[in-house]
Amino acid sequence: MASAAYTDCILLFGDSLTQAWSPGSLAQRMAEHYLRRLDIVNRGYGGYNSDWASPVFEQIFTKASVREAGQSQAVRIITIWFGANDAVLPGQRQHVPLERYKTNLSKLISLIRSPASEWYSPQTKIILINPPPVIETAWHLSSLQKWRDFGSKGDPPTPNRDRRVTKQYAEACVEVAKAEGVDVIDFWNTLVQRAGGEEPERLAPFFYDGLHLTAEGYKVLFEALKGFINSKYPELNPETMEMRMPHWADVELDAPEKAFEGVRRRRLIGEL
Amino acid sequence: MASAAYTDCILLFGDSLTQAWSPGSLAQRMAEHYLRRLDIVNRGYGGYNSDWASPVFEQIFTKASVREAGQSQAVRIITIWFGANDAVLPGQRQHVPLERYKTNLSKLISLIRSPASEWYSPQTKIILINPPPVIETAWHLSSLQKWRDFGSKGDPPTPNRDRRVTKQYAEACVEVAKAEGVDVIDFWNTLVQRAGGEEPERLAPFFYDGLHLTAEGYKVLFEALKGFINSKYPELNPETMEMRMPHWADVELDAPEKAFEGVRRRRLIGEL
Repeated sequence: MASAAYTDCILLFGDSLTQAWSPGSLAQRMAEHYLRRLDIVNRGYGGYNSDWASPVFEQIFTKASVREAGQSQAVRIITIWFGANDAVLPGQRQHVPLERYKTNLSKLISLIRSPASEWYSPQTKIILINPPPVIETAWHLSSLQKWRDFGSKGDPPTPNRDRRVTKQYAEACVEVAKAEGVDVIDFWNTLVQRAGGEEPERLAPFFYDGLHLTAEGYKVLFEALKGFINSKYPELNPETMEMRMPHWADVELDAPEKAFEGVRRRRLIGEL
Repeated sequence: MASAAYTDCILLFGDSLTQAWSPGSLAQRMAEHYLRRLDIVNRGYGGYNSDWASPVFEQIFTKASVREAGQSQAVRIITIWFGANDAVLPGQRQHVPLERYKTNLSKLISLIRSPASEWYSPQTKIILINPPPVIETAWHLSSLQKWRDFGSKGDPPTPNRDRRVTKQYAEACVEVAKAEGVDVIDFWNTLVQRAGGEEPERLAPFFYDGLHLTAEGYKVLFEALKGFINSKYPELNPETMEMRMPHWADVELDAPEKAFEGVRRRRLIGEL
């Protein structure tokens, strides 16, 4: 990209839970956390499910052939966060059966990890994130309100989610990660523990419509993801990573370009 | 970059005022505003001045030769926002004399607009942003506090900014834009008008340390930038731009890949 040649990135891939750039969202927190170290690339698509993940991924992820040409931005980490929509009840257009959800996640992982894949990227760390609980009633009421706000066209929405069903997808995501040997943030359990239970009144502060997260909900995920990365991949802890461009006080006034070119040189020879 | 092939971007280039990814910052507001339409690439470098802008730009902006290879992300808009550090008083290491500040901005513009430049990018719209006022006392007191917080090493900081001096750089930025025929957001005057004057007590809500903007200060800039883009470049109004990937309700369930490939096809033939 325009400015990617010397700045690696973390790619956030998923549905509406990933899509948000609002204050306190995962993307905003990560972008601030990795300030001047890594770009945060948001590839969240509201309403998408794991059936669509692979065909979309093939469009947005650089092919190995291009990457080897040295013009693309290296993806140090990709977070893969699907399941909240797969888990809608059968009959709804976004529904994906549990077994196929697992197959889809494995397929996505193999697109990155299989040497035979056009998108093979062995240096990219894969971190799955599983869907959090849902507050069914709150979500249904907000769907009804949205339907009314848009002129009550067509049939009113029917209840389309069940926390116990979503939980099966959350558990399946963890199983896939273990089976495939990739990392996973068990957000379902992390959030339930933090909330002190699965009851709606305990989960309420973390969701603004029963399905989508408040800044407080994202904070729980961000802290878990940050802690995981810092402990397992200390080289990606922004507090100890070198900035892509030097601190202003370190720039030689007589020949500033040296400082900036230095970043490129060290990167080209693999020091950064 | 990893995911840039089919997503254009807006590049925010400048100093610490650009660098922020905090809630309510320019970058966060722009990223949320252009959700699923354009990436926001933050290339803000705290403490940098216009002397360093060109050598840094040459490192972060894709060369025309690479762009023509079709693997890079098109920069639809670049905002260039320097001057707040150039305007520190003579003797300070970041100081850049007024005339050289103007020359530096012109040089940066020519790197993008001159067909002879390796970084020639005729499709990139250039929008200069001039520095806002400074609340000298607040800034000096916060610098002293920072110096104490870091153990009072070396001499205490001396007052290093004067609003009347910064104003000369703000006016010079507008002059350069007019002379070069590029767009400019006269942030100095926009903010002063919004504040109702240049007096510290009027400017206070817009700065958290006398130099750096609060979310309220960034909001004034964001609204001005958004309004300018929507009126002058309606094709870049996100409310009417097509999303890079279709709405989930528009994806054909029998052959979803069609919908996603369609985005690529239309982009390759220049429809997007």
